[in-house]
Amino acid sequence: MFITLEGPEGGGKTWHVKPLAEFLRQRGHAVLTTREPGGTPIGDQIRQVLHRLDNTAMNPRTESLLFQAARAQLVEQIIRPHLAAGGVVLSDRYADSTLAYQGYGHGLPLEQLTSIIGFATGGLKPDLTLLLDLDVEIGLNRKVKSGEWNRLDAYTVEFHRRVRAGFHALCQADPARWVIIDASQPIEAVQEAIRQVVMARL
Amino acid sequence: MFITLEGPEGGGKTWHVKPLAEFLRQRGHAVLTTREPGGTPIGDQIRQVLHRLDNTAMNPRTESLLFQAARAQLVEQIIRPHLAAGGVVLSDRYADSTLAYQGYGHGLPLEQLTSIIGFATGGLKPDLTLLLDLDVEIGLNRKVKSGEWNRLDAYTVEFHRRVRAGFHALCQADPARWVIIDASQPIEAVQEAIRQVVMARL
Repeated sequence: MFITLEGPEGGGKTWHVKPLAEFLRQRGHAVLTTREPGGTPIGDQIRQVLHRLDNTAMNPRTESLLFQAARAQLVEQIIRPHLAAGGVVLSDRYADSTLAYQGYGHGLPLEQLTSIIGFATGGLKPDLTLLLDLDVEIGLNRKVKSGEWNRLDAYTVEFHRRVRAGFHALCQADPARWVIIDASQPIEAVQEAIRQVVMARL
Repeated sequence: MFITLEGPEGGGKTWHVKPLAEFLRQRGHAVLTTREPGGTPIGDQIRQVLHRLDNTAMNPRTESLLFQAARAQLVEQIIRPHLAAGGVVLSDRYADSTLAYQGYGHGLPLEQLTSIIGFATGGLKPDLTLLLDLDVEIGLNRKVKSGEWNRLDAYTVEFHRRVRAGFHALCQADPARWVIIDASQPIEAVQEAIRQVVMARL
Protein backbone atom coordinates (compact mmCIF):
# COMPACT_ATOMS: atom_id res chain seq x y z
CA MET A 1 0.00 0.00 0.00
CA PHE A 2 1.31 3.40 -1.05
CA ILE A 3 0.19 6.27 1.18
CA THR A 4 1.06 9.92 0.58
CA LEU A 5 0.73 12.95 2.84
CA GLU A 6 0.00 16.18 1.03
CA GLY A 7 -1.04 19.71 1.83
CA PRO A 8 0.05 23.31 2.21
CA GLU A 9 3.08 24.34 4.29
CA GLY A 10 3.03 23.94 8.06
CA GLY A 11 0.46 21.13 8.19
CA GLY A 12 2.90 18.85 10.00
CA LYS A 13 3.30 16.24 7.24
CA THR A 14 6.96 15.63 8.05
CA TRP A 15 6.24 15.28 11.77
CA HIS A 16 3.34 12.84 11.33
CA VAL A 17 5.20 10.34 9.13
CA LYS A 18 7.34 8.98 11.97
CA PRO A 19 4.66 8.15 14.63
CA LEU A 20 2.37 6.80 11.88
CA ALA A 21 5.15 4.51 10.68
CA GLU A 22 5.82 3.33 14.24
CA PHE A 23 2.12 2.68 14.77
CA LEU A 24 1.92 0.57 11.59
CA ARG A 25 5.13 -1.31 12.39
CA GLN A 26 3.69 -2.32 15.77
CA ARG A 27 0.82 -3.85 13.79
CA GLY A 28 3.24 -5.95 11.74
CA HIS A 29 3.58 -3.89 8.56
CA ALA A 30 6.93 -3.44 6.81
CA VAL A 31 6.87 0.35 6.54
CA LEU A 32 9.24 2.48 4.50
CA THR A 33 9.10 6.24 4.93
CA THR A 34 10.35 8.74 2.41
CA ARG A 35 9.98 12.35 1.37
CA GLU A 36 9.92 14.58 -1.66
CA PRO A 37 11.96 16.10 -3.05
CA GLY A 38 14.74 13.74 -2.09
CA GLY A 39 14.62 10.32 -0.52
CA THR A 40 17.66 9.07 -2.46
CA PRO A 41 21.25 10.36 -2.57
CA ILE A 42 20.63 11.76 -6.08
CA GLY A 43 17.24 13.16 -5.04
CA ASP A 44 18.83 14.88 -2.05
CA GLN A 45 21.31 16.61 -4.39
CA ILE A 46 18.32 17.80 -6.44
CA ARG A 47 16.55 18.90 -3.23
CA GLN A 48 19.49 21.17 -2.43
CA VAL A 49 19.19 22.87 -5.83
CA LEU A 50 15.42 23.33 -5.34
CA HIS A 51 15.66 24.71 -1.81
CA ARG A 52 18.71 27.01 -2.07
CA LEU A 53 17.47 30.45 -1.13
CA ASP A 54 19.80 32.15 -3.64
CA ASN A 55 18.30 30.28 -6.60
CA THR A 56 15.73 33.05 -6.97
CA ALA A 57 16.07 33.05 -10.78
CA MET A 58 14.64 29.52 -11.03
CA ASN A 59 11.75 29.42 -13.48
CA PRO A 60 8.64 27.33 -12.75
CA ARG A 61 9.29 24.87 -15.60
CA THR A 62 12.78 24.17 -14.28
CA GLU A 63 11.36 23.79 -10.77
CA SER A 64 8.73 21.31 -11.91
CA LEU A 65 11.25 19.27 -13.93
CA LEU A 66 13.62 19.07 -10.95
CA PHE A 67 10.82 17.74 -8.74
CA GLN A 68 10.00 15.18 -11.43
CA ALA A 69 13.65 14.15 -11.75
CA ALA A 70 13.94 13.50 -8.00
CA ARG A 71 10.62 11.64 -8.13
CA ALA A 72 11.69 9.37 -10.99
CA GLN A 73 14.72 8.32 -8.97
CA LEU A 74 12.69 7.79 -5.78
CA VAL A 75 10.04 5.66 -7.49
CA GLU A 76 12.47 3.35 -9.24
CA GLN A 77 15.11 3.06 -6.54
CA ILE A 78 12.99 3.02 -3.36
CA ILE A 79 9.20 2.97 -3.69
CA ARG A 80 8.61 0.30 -6.36
CA PRO A 81 10.96 -2.30 -4.81
CA HIS A 82 9.35 -1.87 -1.37
CA LEU A 83 5.81 -2.13 -2.74
CA ALA A 84 6.81 -5.16 -4.81
CA ALA A 85 8.04 -6.82 -1.60
CA GLY A 86 4.59 -6.29 -0.05
CA GLY A 87 5.49 -3.36 2.19
CA VAL A 88 3.75 -0.10 3.03
CA VAL A 89 5.30 3.12 1.74
CA LEU A 90 4.57 6.44 3.46
CA SER A 91 5.71 9.47 1.48
CA ASP A 92 5.89 13.03 2.73
CA ARG A 93 4.60 14.63 -0.55
CA TYR A 94 4.42 13.06 -4.01
CA ALA A 95 3.09 13.88 -7.47
CA ASP A 96 0.02 15.81 -6.27
CA SER A 97 2.37 18.48 -4.94
CA THR A 98 3.58 19.08 -8.50
CA LEU A 99 0.02 19.68 -9.65
CA ALA A 100 -0.77 21.89 -6.64
CA TYR A 101 2.45 23.97 -6.58
CA GLN A 102 3.60 24.17 -10.20
CA GLY A 103 0.13 23.71 -11.72
CA TYR A 104 -2.32 25.63 -9.54
CA GLY A 105 0.39 27.76 -7.86
CA HIS A 106 2.53 28.80 -10.85
CA GLY A 107 -0.13 28.28 -13.50
CA LEU A 108 1.71 25.68 -15.59
CA PRO A 109 -0.64 23.55 -17.73
CA LEU A 110 -2.05 20.66 -15.65
CA GLU A 111 -2.31 18.37 -18.66
CA GLN A 112 1.39 18.66 -19.49
CA LEU A 113 2.39 18.26 -15.83
CA THR A 114 0.22 15.14 -15.56
CA SER A 115 1.85 13.70 -18.66
CA ILE A 116 5.36 14.33 -17.26
CA ILE A 117 4.31 12.79 -13.93
CA GLY A 118 3.34 9.67 -15.89
CA PHE A 119 6.79 9.61 -17.51
CA ALA A 120 8.61 10.14 -14.20
CA THR A 121 6.64 7.61 -12.16
CA GLY A 122 5.85 5.03 -14.83
CA GLY A 123 2.21 5.53 -13.82
CA LEU A 124 2.59 4.71 -10.10
CA LYS A 125 -0.24 6.35 -8.13
CA PRO A 126 -0.86 6.35 -4.36
CA ASP A 127 -3.59 4.10 -2.95
CA LEU A 128 -4.44 6.69 -0.29
CA THR A 129 -3.63 10.38 -0.01
CA LEU A 130 -4.12 12.34 3.18
CA LEU A 131 -4.56 16.07 2.78
CA LEU A 132 -3.32 17.75 5.96
CA ASP A 133 -5.30 20.88 5.44
CA LEU A 134 -5.05 24.20 7.24
CA ASP A 135 -5.27 27.93 6.73
CA VAL A 136 -2.34 29.20 4.66
CA GLU A 137 -1.31 32.02 7.03
CA ILE A 138 -1.35 29.72 10.07
CA GLY A 139 0.72 27.16 8.17
CA LEU A 140 3.33 29.66 6.99
CA ASN A 141 3.63 31.10 10.50
CA ARG A 142 4.32 27.61 11.84
CA LYS A 143 6.94 27.13 9.14
CA VAL A 144 8.67 30.42 10.04
CA LYS A 145 8.82 29.37 13.70
CA SER A 146 10.21 25.94 12.78
CA GLY A 147 13.27 27.62 11.23
CA GLU A 148 13.04 25.33 8.18
CA TRP A 149 12.38 28.05 5.65
CA ASN A 150 13.29 27.33 2.02
CA ARG A 151 13.05 29.02 -1.38
CA LEU A 152 9.55 27.72 -2.09
CA ASP A 153 8.14 28.83 1.26
CA ALA A 154 9.13 32.35 0.27
CA TYR A 155 6.58 32.54 -2.57
CA THR A 156 3.74 34.99 -1.90
CA VAL A 157 0.81 34.19 0.38
CA GLU A 158 -1.39 34.44 -2.72
CA PHE A 159 0.68 31.65 -4.33
CA HIS A 160 0.20 29.46 -1.27
CA ARG A 161 -3.56 30.16 -1.35
CA ARG A 162 -3.71 28.90 -4.95
CA VAL A 163 -1.77 25.80 -3.86
CA ARG A 164 -4.27 25.05 -1.10
CA ALA A 165 -7.20 25.57 -3.46
CA GLY A 166 -5.41 23.26 -5.90
CA PHE A 167 -5.23 20.50 -3.32
CA HIS A 168 -8.97 20.85 -2.75
CA ALA A 169 -9.62 20.63 -6.49
CA LEU A 170 -7.52 17.45 -6.68
CA CYS A 171 -9.51 15.95 -3.78
CA GLN A 172 -12.78 16.68 -5.52
CA ALA A 173 -11.58 15.12 -8.76
CA ASP A 174 -10.64 11.80 -7.09
CA PRO A 175 -12.56 11.49 -3.78
CA ALA A 176 -11.95 7.73 -3.52
CA ARG A 177 -8.23 8.30 -3.06
CA TRP A 178 -8.20 11.46 -0.93
CA VAL A 179 -9.14 12.07 2.71
CA ILE A 180 -9.03 15.57 4.17
CA ILE A 181 -7.67 15.88 7.73
CA ASP A 182 -8.09 19.12 9.66
CA ALA A 183 -4.47 19.95 10.48
CA SER A 184 -5.35 22.99 12.60
CA GLN A 185 -6.28 20.61 15.47
CA PRO A 186 -3.75 19.74 18.21
CA ILE A 187 -1.05 17.50 16.77
CA GLU A 188 -2.17 14.43 18.78
CA ALA A 189 -5.71 14.75 17.43
CA VAL A 190 -4.34 15.00 13.88
CA GLN A 191 -2.22 11.88 14.37
CA GLU A 192 -5.22 10.03 15.78
CA ALA A 193 -7.37 11.03 12.80
CA ILE A 194 -4.63 9.89 10.39
CA ARG A 195 -4.32 6.51 12.11
CA GLN A 196 -8.06 5.89 11.94
CA VAL A 197 -8.17 6.63 8.21
CA VAL A 198 -5.16 4.46 7.46
CA MET A 199 -6.39 1.52 9.58
CA ALA A 200 -9.76 1.65 7.84
CA ARG A 201 -7.99 1.26 4.47
CA LEU A 202 -5.35 -1.33 5.30
CA MET B 1 19.66 32.87 -35.35
CA PHE B 2 19.95 29.88 -33.05
CA ILE B 3 22.74 27.45 -33.95
CA THR B 4 23.45 24.21 -32.08
CA LEU B 5 26.44 21.87 -32.22
CA GLU B 6 25.60 18.23 -31.65
CA GLY B 7 27.25 14.86 -31.99
CA PRO B 8 28.90 11.97 -30.17
CA GLU B 9 31.68 12.46 -27.59
CA GLY B 10 35.08 13.75 -28.69
CA GLY B 11 33.88 15.57 -31.83
CA GLY B 12 35.29 18.87 -30.54
CA LYS B 13 31.98 20.71 -30.11
CA THR B 14 33.19 22.57 -27.03
CA TRP B 15 36.44 23.59 -28.73
CA HIS B 16 34.78 24.86 -31.93
CA VAL B 17 32.28 27.18 -30.25
CA LYS B 18 34.88 29.79 -29.29
CA PRO B 19 36.64 30.37 -32.66
CA LEU B 20 33.29 30.26 -34.45
CA ALA B 21 31.93 32.92 -32.09
CA GLU B 22 35.02 35.08 -32.66
CA PHE B 23 34.68 34.68 -36.41
CA LEU B 24 31.03 35.78 -36.31
CA ARG B 25 31.73 38.69 -33.98
CA GLN B 26 34.35 39.99 -36.40
CA ARG B 27 31.54 40.05 -38.97
CA GLY B 28 29.40 42.21 -36.70
CA HIS B 29 27.10 39.65 -35.11
CA ALA B 30 26.17 39.82 -31.42
CA VAL B 31 27.09 36.26 -30.47
CA LEU B 32 26.23 34.51 -27.23
CA THR B 33 27.75 31.11 -26.54
CA THR B 34 26.38 28.58 -24.12
CA ARG B 35 26.45 24.89 -23.33
CA GLU B 36 24.28 22.08 -22.08
CA PRO B 37 23.80 20.94 -19.45
CA GLY B 38 24.45 24.22 -17.65
CA GLY B 39 24.86 27.71 -19.01
CA THR B 40 23.18 29.31 -15.99
CA PRO B 41 24.08 29.20 -12.28
CA ILE B 42 21.13 26.86 -11.63
CA GLY B 43 21.94 24.79 -14.72
CA ASP B 44 25.53 24.43 -13.57
CA GLN B 45 24.31 23.01 -10.25
CA ILE B 46 22.23 20.51 -12.23
CA ARG B 47 25.27 19.73 -14.42
CA GLN B 48 27.22 18.74 -11.32
CA VAL B 49 24.51 16.25 -10.33
CA LEU B 50 24.46 14.80 -13.86
CA HIS B 51 28.23 14.46 -14.20
CA ARG B 52 29.22 13.21 -10.71
CA LEU B 53 30.94 9.88 -11.28
CA ASP B 54 29.51 8.43 -8.03
CA ASN B 55 25.90 8.97 -9.16
CA THR B 56 25.96 5.54 -10.81
CA ALA B 57 22.45 4.73 -9.52
CA MET B 58 20.89 7.47 -11.67
CA ASN B 59 18.07 6.09 -13.76
CA PRO B 60 17.57 7.22 -17.39
CA ARG B 61 14.29 9.01 -16.66
CA THR B 62 15.89 11.04 -13.89
CA GLU B 63 18.82 11.80 -16.19
CA SER B 64 16.54 13.00 -18.98
CA LEU B 65 14.47 15.17 -16.60
CA LEU B 66 17.60 16.81 -15.18
CA PHE B 67 18.78 17.70 -18.69
CA GLN B 68 15.34 19.15 -19.41
CA ALA B 69 15.35 21.14 -16.16
CA ALA B 70 18.70 22.73 -16.99
CA ARG B 71 17.45 23.41 -20.53
CA ALA B 72 14.26 25.12 -19.35
CA GLN B 73 16.36 27.51 -17.27
CA LEU B 74 18.82 28.14 -20.11
CA VAL B 75 16.12 28.87 -22.68
CA GLU B 76 14.19 31.32 -20.53
CA GLN B 77 17.08 33.06 -18.81
CA ILE B 78 19.69 33.21 -21.60
CA ILE B 79 18.71 32.02 -25.08
CA ARG B 80 15.31 33.64 -25.61
CA PRO B 81 16.34 37.13 -24.43
CA HIS B 82 19.42 37.10 -26.70
CA LEU B 83 17.46 35.91 -29.75
CA ALA B 84 14.75 38.48 -29.02
CA ALA B 85 17.45 41.19 -29.07
CA GLY B 86 18.48 40.04 -32.57
CA GLY B 87 21.62 38.15 -31.58
CA VAL B 88 23.12 34.85 -32.63
CA VAL B 89 23.17 32.03 -30.06
CA LEU B 90 25.67 29.18 -30.38
CA SER B 91 24.95 26.27 -28.08
CA ASP B 92 27.22 23.32 -27.35
CA ARG B 93 24.44 20.68 -27.34
CA TYR B 94 20.67 21.21 -27.01
CA ALA B 95 17.46 19.19 -27.19
CA ASP B 96 18.66 16.78 -29.90
CA SER B 97 21.12 15.37 -27.38
CA THR B 98 18.18 14.30 -25.20
CA LEU B 99 16.68 12.39 -28.12
CA ALA B 100 20.04 10.86 -29.07
CA TYR B 101 21.27 9.94 -25.57
CA GLN B 102 18.14 9.22 -23.52
CA GLY B 103 15.99 8.21 -26.50
CA TYR B 104 18.21 6.25 -28.89
CA GLY B 105 20.88 5.51 -26.26
CA HIS B 106 18.78 4.48 -23.24
CA GLY B 107 15.67 3.48 -25.20
CA LEU B 108 13.24 5.93 -23.57
CA PRO B 109 10.19 6.66 -25.76
CA LEU B 110 11.01 9.39 -28.30
CA GLU B 111 7.45 10.69 -28.36
CA GLN B 112 7.39 11.35 -24.60
CA LEU B 113 10.86 12.90 -24.68
CA THR B 114 9.78 15.18 -27.54
CA SER B 115 6.72 16.24 -25.58
CA ILE B 116 8.82 17.09 -22.50
CA ILE B 117 11.29 18.99 -24.70
CA GLY B 118 8.33 21.08 -25.87
CA PHE B 119 7.40 21.80 -22.24
CA ALA B 120 10.98 22.68 -21.24
CA THR B 121 11.78 24.90 -24.23
CA GLY B 122 8.36 26.38 -24.92
CA GLY B 123 8.84 25.06 -28.45
CA LEU B 124 12.11 26.83 -29.24
CA LYS B 125 13.98 24.96 -31.99
CA PRO B 126 17.39 25.68 -33.52
CA ASP B 127 17.57 27.27 -36.97
CA LEU B 128 20.70 25.29 -37.81
CA THR B 129 22.23 22.21 -36.20
CA LEU B 130 25.75 21.03 -37.01
CA LEU B 131 26.43 17.36 -36.40
CA LEU B 132 30.15 16.98 -35.63
CA ASP B 133 30.28 13.36 -36.60
CA LEU B 134 33.00 10.83 -36.00
CA ASP B 135 33.65 7.22 -35.18
CA VAL B 136 32.59 6.43 -31.61
CA GLU B 137 35.85 4.74 -30.54
CA ILE B 138 37.98 7.58 -31.91
CA GLY B 139 35.77 10.10 -30.10
CA LEU B 140 35.88 8.31 -26.74
CA ASN B 141 39.67 7.94 -27.00
CA ARG B 142 39.95 11.68 -27.55
CA LYS B 143 37.73 12.27 -24.51
CA VAL B 144 39.90 9.98 -22.34
CA LYS B 145 43.02 11.89 -23.37
CA SER B 146 41.36 15.25 -22.64
CA GLY B 147 40.91 14.26 -18.99
CA GLU B 148 37.31 15.56 -19.01
CA TRP B 149 35.68 12.21 -18.35
CA ASN B 150 32.23 12.26 -16.74
CA ARG B 151 29.51 9.80 -15.68
CA LEU B 152 27.85 9.77 -19.11
CA ASP B 153 31.08 9.13 -21.01
CA ALA B 154 31.42 5.94 -18.98
CA TYR B 155 28.37 4.31 -20.62
CA THR B 156 29.27 1.35 -22.85
CA VAL B 157 30.65 1.75 -26.37
CA GLU B 158 27.44 0.10 -27.60
CA PHE B 159 25.44 2.89 -25.92
CA HIS B 160 27.56 5.51 -27.67
CA ARG B 161 27.05 3.70 -31.00
CA ARG B 162 23.27 3.93 -30.55
CA VAL B 163 23.68 7.63 -29.75
CA ARG B 164 25.59 8.25 -32.97
CA ALA B 165 23.04 6.28 -34.99
CA GLY B 166 20.35 8.36 -33.28
CA PHE B 167 21.96 11.60 -34.42
CA HIS B 168 21.97 10.27 -37.99
CA ALA B 169 18.28 9.35 -37.71
CA LEU B 170 17.50 12.87 -36.45
CA CYS B 171 19.41 14.36 -39.43
CA GLN B 172 17.45 12.28 -41.87
CA ALA B 173 14.14 13.27 -40.30
CA ASP B 174 14.86 17.03 -40.65
CA PRO B 175 17.50 17.53 -43.35
CA ALA B 176 16.71 21.23 -43.77
CA ARG B 177 17.96 21.98 -40.26
CA TRP B 178 20.92 19.59 -40.00
CA VAL B 179 24.36 19.64 -41.64
CA ILE B 180 26.82 16.82 -41.05
CA ILE B 181 30.46 17.82 -40.59
CA ASP B 182 33.21 15.19 -40.70
CA ALA B 183 34.84 15.73 -37.29
CA SER B 184 37.60 13.20 -37.93
CA GLN B 185 39.39 15.80 -40.09
CA PRO B 186 42.13 18.04 -38.63
CA ILE B 187 40.56 20.58 -36.28
CA GLU B 188 41.31 23.56 -38.57
CA ALA B 189 39.53 21.85 -41.46
CA VAL B 190 36.51 21.16 -39.25
CA GLN B 191 36.39 24.80 -38.13
CA GLU B 192 36.63 25.94 -41.75
CA ALA B 193 33.76 23.63 -42.76
CA ILE B 194 31.64 24.92 -39.88
CA ARG B 195 32.28 28.56 -40.85
CA GLN B 196 31.28 27.91 -44.46
CA VAL B 197 28.01 26.29 -43.45
CA VAL B 198 27.14 29.03 -40.97
CA MET B 199 28.02 31.88 -43.37
CA ALA B 200 25.83 30.29 -46.05
CA ARG B 201 22.86 30.38 -43.65
CA LEU B 202 23.31 33.75 -41.99
